[in-house]
Amino acid sequence: MTTENPEESTVVIPEGIRWNEDGLIPAIVQDVNTQKVLMLAYMNEEALRLTLKENRAWYYSRSRQSLWLKGETSGNIQQVMELRFDCDQDAILLTVQQKGVACHEDYYSCFHYAAQGREFVPLGEPKVIPPLPLGRTLELLAEVIHSRNLERPEGAYTTYLFEKGIDKILKKVGEESAETIIAAKNSSVEEIRYEVSDLFYHLLVLLEERGVTLQEISQELLARKK
Amino acid sequence: MTTENPEESTVVIPEGIRWNEDGLIPAIVQDVNTQKVLMLAYMNEEALRLTLKENRAWYYSRSRQSLWLKGETSGNIQQVMELRFDCDQDAILLTVQQKGVACHEDYYSCFHYAAQGREFVPLGEPKVIPPLPLGRTLELLAEVIHSRNLERPEGAYTTYLFEKGIDKILKKVGEESAETIIAAKNSSVEEIRYEVSDLFYHLLVLLEERGVTLQEISQELLARKK
Repeated sequence: MTTENPEESTVVIPEGIRWNEDGLIPAIVQDVNTQKVLMLAYMNEEALRLTLKENRAWYYSRSRQSLWLKGETSGNIQQVMELRFDCDQDAILLTVQQKGVACHEDYYSCFHYAAQGREFVPLGEPKVIPPLPLGRTLELLAEVIHSRNLERPEGAYTTYLFEKGIDKILKKVGEESAETIIAAKNSSVEEIRYEVSDLFYHLLVLLEERGVTLQEISQELLARKK
Repeated sequence: MTTENPEESTVVIPEGIRWNEDGLIPAIVQDVNTQKVLMLAYMNEEALRLTLKENRAWYYSRSRQSLWLKGETSGNIQQVMELRFDCDQDAILLTVQQKGVACHEDYYSCFHYAAQGREFVPLGEPKVIPPLPLGRTLELLAEVIHSRNLERPEGAYTTYLFEKGIDKILKKVGEESAETIIAAKNSSVEEIRYEVSDLFYHLLVLLEERGVTLQEISQELLARKK
């Protein structure tokens, strides 16, 4: 294998990767935020080395028979957050922070066709990164709140709440739920959006302060049938 | 291609699939609930037909050179919820309801190795389907609440709330937030878990009743930095 860049050899890769007959391994690409599967591409040894070295996704184009840095021309770089191998070492899962969109057809994900009889039917996938679903937003917010609790950065409102303690947090829960009720009575979508968001946030702070995990709430909700 | 089962021919598949030189197409498998990527497998034409026909995942084993129904021996069937093709028709994305675990090594997902220098290091992946994160649970709960609102099945508590209307829902929001405050003051994890779950549920009912989407709450929260 030719090595254009002498520095590449400093990054070692695991032995025992099961490259296919063309010296390639398929790499599944998943968005770290939305969890959507974005594309399937192939890496050769050099692409894998460069990916591990730069934390940006490099692939090998089977049609052009050359290495490519994803996003080199489009700017739609994939920052690699995690790289996993499967149990028989013949597939890679990349978890990435996707800039722009993944698909060369300008869709967010390459997987935007359904099979309908003998035809491929476009699914009307978004052409931009879709907004984060509330679930993921709450999870990410809970992570921020957790790190605020550990690090207590000065000037952060969340730090202020933790320093003041549980009574202050509970006063805010009471206040935000009262404001939610008033907003709903006003039938104001803007107010409801604002106050319910405030209430969600303060409930997450409360859970963090009392050491109750989101997982416990999830299990409690799943155990019910209404 | 030999066809063992004459009925298979009744299921048509799209023309223009770009099979590889072995007549296979890679299929990425993602869990519909947890959104985790479970495995990468291969289908030949027959496996794709059977998958479309039965809504259960069939693959082609490259090592055994034969068709296999995922879960036939282990019982770990993959019920196919959605099947997508990518933009150049040379990869499939299956969204499945996974029974048991996906990996033949008895892990939930096949992707349970990291690269560390020249070694593959096990990531300590779960050996059972991990519990749903709160985010997904809330999304699924919101979907149930939405369908309760449309269908109003008799005897369901959610139906009762919608029939009673906004004042009843808001009284419950007030009650559950008061109970959350009391639970937190009691430092009882069980009580907090129970009351916060109740509050989340009633807030989702409120959002549904007032026509505010979870997406709007998500965007409101993302727009803030605290």
